[in-house]
Amino acid sequence: MSAIDTLASELSRLPGIGRKTAMRLTYHLLKQPAEQSQRLADALVTLAEKVKPCAQCFNLTEEEICSICRDPRRDAALICAVEEASDIGAIERAGEFRGVYHVLGGRLSPLDGIGPEDLTITQLEQRITSNTVREVILATNPSIEGEATALYVQRKLSPYKLTVTRIARGLPVGGDLEYADGVTIAQALSARRTM
Amino acid sequence: MSAIDTLASELSRLPGIGRKTAMRLTYHLLKQPAEQSQRLADALVTLAEKVKPCAQCFNLTEEEICSICRDPRRDAALICAVEEASDIGAIERAGEFRGVYHVLGGRLSPLDGIGPEDLTITQLEQRITSNTVREVILATNPSIEGEATALYVQRKLSPYKLTVTRIARGLPVGGDLEYADGVTIAQALSARRTM
Repeated sequence: MSAIDTLASELSRLPGIGRKTAMRLTYHLLKQPAEQSQRLADALVTLAEKVKPCAQCFNLTEEEICSICRDPRRDAALICAVEEASDIGAIERAGEFRGVYHVLGGRLSPLDGIGPEDLTITQLEQRITSNTVREVILATNPSIEGEATALYVQRKLSPYKLTVTRIARGLPVGGDLEYADGVTIAQALSARRTM
Repeated sequence: MSAIDTLASELSRLPGIGRKTAMRLTYHLLKQPAEQSQRLADALVTLAEKVKPCAQCFNLTEEEICSICRDPRRDAALICAVEEASDIGAIERAGEFRGVYHVLGGRLSPLDGIGPEDLTITQLEQRITSNTVREVILATNPSIEGEATALYVQRKLSPYKLTVTRIARGLPVGGDLEYADGVTIAQALSARRTM
């Protein structure tokens, strides 16, 4: 296989990148200085070597404990449980949350063979027993699997003395009622609050 | 900058990959075995090191002369001039053309500061004077710049004893008249043929 085909085939393994896009990216890189390909290659190798899950919350980090868990200004008694480490970035960008996180490592999905033992639910229970935890916010996705996961975790945590909450579902800010799906509208109506 | 941010920022330099997609790809790679990132990094380095333009036609190759120019079964007297090496792949996949190529290396675009001296037009003339060339097909893109480039090359080649042709423009096969633009329909009408 030629160098062009090899790179294109490696690129097309990435999600959302098909054969044509992979070819386009390859030809683009050929027109750039060789240093750009080299920097991208270095970044890939560094990523694979250095990044690993935080020993406490399973967020991705280059240290033993991630920067959020290490931050003394964050409220360690408030844990927000998310499906993936990538969800943390979205919540951090919102700039509202001052607690810490727990990455479950996915969601329950019997069809894909993902059961409770594949998630970090036991480790979440360990964190609760060994530290003072006041509240766990379940911020799994508002999908069928995400809801099932939230329900399962909520039941697992019910013996402990803490509050378990679920992120609110409703119309997205800036969204349009006309284009919202029925389930979202129904949720937004049933979760209505007095003004 | 963290390893995650470094890779995401390198990925987002690629065309069509924004910050969010770059992050998604990075998190995807983190979930794959490290060998996948390594293979992608290797392919990038090999590409930058090995691939260079063919000494004859400027197609991209890992040899001195590309495999198409070296193929004795191809008609060396029939040259198809294209803008970019990536166009060759598209024509080869069509499986109709049995001649050889000449990569112009772009198209005339005064606004971007690309003039005739930036293209390989002189080298095309050299190929014509030193070899027997029967026909040059101008397969630059059917855009304003592509047409201007074709016209310029055609005038440059007019002193030589050979046929200069232009690829046909018309409705794409499988296309829909209803959604075709007016210029394409006008071209398709004026280039109509008796059945």
